Amino acid sequence: MNELFMRKAIRIASESVMNGGGPFGAVIVKDGEIIAESANSVTQDNDSTAHAEINAIRQACFKLGTFDLTGCDIYTSCEPCPMCLGAIYWARISHIYYGNSRKDAANINFADDYIYEEIGKSPNNRNLPIIQMLRDEAQETLRLWMEKTDKIEY
Amino acid sequence: MNELFMRKAIRIASESVMNGGGPFGAVIVKDGEIIAESANSVTQDNDSTAHAEINAIRQACFKLGTFDLTGCDIYTSCEPCPMCLGAIYWARISHIYYGNSRKDAANINFADDYIYEEIGKSPNNRNLPIIQMLRDEAQETLRLWMEKTDKIEY
Repeated sequence: MNELFMRKAIRIASESVMNGGGPFGAVIVKDGEIIAESANSVTQDNDSTAHAEINAIRQACFKLGTFDLTGCDIYTSCEPCPMCLGAIYWARISHIYYGNSRKDAANINFADDYIYEEIGKSPNNRNLPIIQMLRDEAQETLRLWMEKTDKIEY
Repeated sequence: MNELFMRKAIRIASESVMNGGGPFGAVIVKDGEIIAESANSVTQDNDSTAHAEINAIRQACFKLGTFDLTGCDIYTSCEPCPMCLGAIYWARISHIYYGNSRKDAANINFADDYIYEEIGKSPNNRNLPIIQMLRDEAQETLRLWMEKTDKIEY
């Protein structure tokens, strides 16, 4: 844990507000050095996935040339939303440090806490309809995957 | 619900396996037409966020020039993982249709189901350490956001 890295994430978040972006920033650290940093850029990039953490993870992957960020830590000015938390798991990041909480984000009208609630529900009880179909046909892809001997697992 | 769109998502997933990628595909539909389609490209792009749904959402946002995909539906060959489900909420997609389930994905050694379990836990009980720090300083960003009169909400 290093306060300098969190202060950097907070500064990125505050500068983002000044520049017309969302109030979130993140940095990714490896071996004591910042290897990626980003603000939220959803509205500037017209990309609903462009949260600070997602942007920073993509940048770190690009920089290191790998989808596996084992040994990296993320410092984010706000608790990651479920999308970003999922991304952090997939990237195998080792530690998460955050400043504001999902409740703080809810207090300024962001949906993070709502999405946590929704994801925790059984799919039938969510507000967003989710319907399974053609599973038998979809299974064929999984058979192909299992049979492939030279696949790259991740 | 349209079986043709799901068959397309499944075909993209199967072709992805043949081409050395992950076994997942997704299409996004608006007004009865496919506006975005993608396979998972994590290993080809060295980008841990490059799931089929994330790729398709980014493509749809780019095509429509907006971060708001209200009125769009997503057809995905496998139940979205928490990262992708979160992304679908943020994008305000209207319906999710899926083929294989998170348990099917777990059976071929993908972490979707594990990540759902982790996200559902209280943060202290997760395997991935998550630590709050410097909240007082981080609050400053939220004050800036609240005070900004010309901000773009999302």
